[in-house]
Amino acid sequence: MSKLEKAIVAIVEVFEEYAGTDDQKKQLSNAELGQLIKAQITSPEFKDKMDSDNIKEVMEELDKNHDGEVNFREFSQCIAGLARAYWQKKHGKDKCKGKGKGCQDK
Amino acid sequence: MSKLEKAIVAIVEVFEEYAGTDDQKKQLSNAELGQLIKAQITSPEFKDKMDSDNIKEVMEELDKNHDGEVNFREFSQCIAGLARAYWQKKHGKDKCKGKGKGCQDK
Repeated sequence: MSKLEKAIVAIVEVFEEYAGTDDQKKQLSNAELGQLIKAQITSPEFKDKMDSDNIKEVMEELDKNHDGEVNFREFSQCIAGLARAYWQKKHGKDKCKGKGKGCQDK
Repeated sequence: MSKLEKAIVAIVEVFEEYAGTDDQKKQLSNAELGQLIKAQITSPEFKDKMDSDNIKEVMEELDKNHDGEVNFREFSQCIAGLARAYWQKKHGKDKCKGKGKGCQDK
């Protein structure tokens, strides 16, 4: 398995690990999201993007369909956002030449 | 660094490695995208989602702002899509209770 595939599998495994602690095994509850962030977001590069002291706010940000839980789709979008934040810290913002979707800020 | 953070860093590193082979070091050209997919998408779980025999089609799918290159934002959305496809293969589709953004298919 390639480096990229290993990374994708790791993201799925982290979600499974924390989502699996209550009955709703395919979703992260407020408490599970809190545990995940507390344990998995530990480096300064990521910590300022996602604050474990304010889980309620993070939950509201991620829970796009407002059902009180974070599903894998919502989680994957969050990880993409964290990756972009990390990229931007290293390289600066992408220049946007077009006006297509790829240029929009979330 | 946590498992999740390592995965995010790995995604950024893979992009940097392939985007860095021509002058436009922050973007993947058609050729670079082809090399990335050929080398990094090797397992059957991912291969059927992204076909290295048809790079032009993949490029058109990813290049949301139509500038002929794939920037990191576009790449991160692609990785999130691959992660969702892998998740769905393991767990089936998420049930959508609400009608919010988190439920939409891309």
